[in-house]
Amino acid sequence: MTVLGIDPGIATTGFGVCEYDNKKFKYINCGVIETAKGQNVECRLERVYASVLKLIDTYMPEALAIEELFYHSNQKTFINVAQARGVILLAAHQKSLPIFEYTPLQVKQSVTGYGRAEKYQVQEMMRVLFKLPGIPKPDDAADALAIAVCHSYRTFSKLASISTLAIAKTTGGK
Amino acid sequence: MTVLGIDPGIATTGFGVCEYDNKKFKYINCGVIETAKGQNVECRLERVYASVLKLIDTYMPEALAIEELFYHSNQKTFINVAQARGVILLAAHQKSLPIFEYTPLQVKQSVTGYGRAEKYQVQEMMRVLFKLPGIPKPDDAADALAIAVCHSYRTFSKLASISTLAIAKTTGGK
Repeated sequence: MTVLGIDPGIATTGFGVCEYDNKKFKYINCGVIETAKGQNVECRLERVYASVLKLIDTYMPEALAIEELFYHSNQKTFINVAQARGVILLAAHQKSLPIFEYTPLQVKQSVTGYGRAEKYQVQEMMRVLFKLPGIPKPDDAADALAIAVCHSYRTFSKLASISTLAIAKTTGGK
Repeated sequence: MTVLGIDPGIATTGFGVCEYDNKKFKYINCGVIETAKGQNVECRLERVYASVLKLIDTYMPEALAIEELFYHSNQKTFINVAQARGVILLAAHQKSLPIFEYTPLQVKQSVTGYGRAEKYQVQEMMRVLFKLPGIPKPDDAADALAIAVCHSYRTFSKLASISTLAIAKTTGGK
């Protein structure tokens, strides 16, 4: 199964694509959709929307996984991120892609085995899992990849987290 | 000039269409776009998006006026309203419609002459201005009409508010 993970934003939307098949993860791609600060918000939303449609056409994922939003103190940014999230959900729906939402805690739990893990631990886990030469950059790309991994994992595995899988492998467990 | 006013929401999005020409307002239509509570959010966003595109095709407005969002205590609703607002801005942008944003205070100020007017005063003003048989229902439709009036007024009039215009007319002023 190919999963497109999205970390929504107005300036930078992270995306990560992975395959999960027969308990094996395969890295496909990750990166960011960037919009110019000087542009008005509707132009930026259009760019995010069109880019997500293109990602879906390119990678033909079977699911879109996206992080749930939580209010933070910068109201203007928060509203813009929520607006961007709206056009991302619209794009996925128009491409008949099922949508799955995860809290940051669920992503951390699935990827590191610990819901209160630090951001860098999640990102480092991406490097290890996919045997990448370094942590995917920028952070939003690595975060989006982690969301895709979280969904793949929770859908197909009965183990509690990726790290449990890693430990199980080294000890010859299931 | 024809203006489409939008009061964004996830369950109910109000719309109001008016013309403003030679210092005269003409009522065109108002109403609501409703989405079913049981549906998932992406289906509701699609309905809002498609309905706004249709409104633009039907009334061919020259501007879209929309209320600015302010955070309120129900986080889940707030996020959904912001997501709906995102797809509305996208629809307007895709139809090359210029977008104008107003605060509730600006709308009240323009329509009643008093920024802290009550909601029913704004709605009553719509009935009077357009010589309607009653206040437009539901509230979201009347509110959206007020946003359209606010934009028309602020764009083309040098007077401070609609109520000033009404007073000026009765006293033979400009």
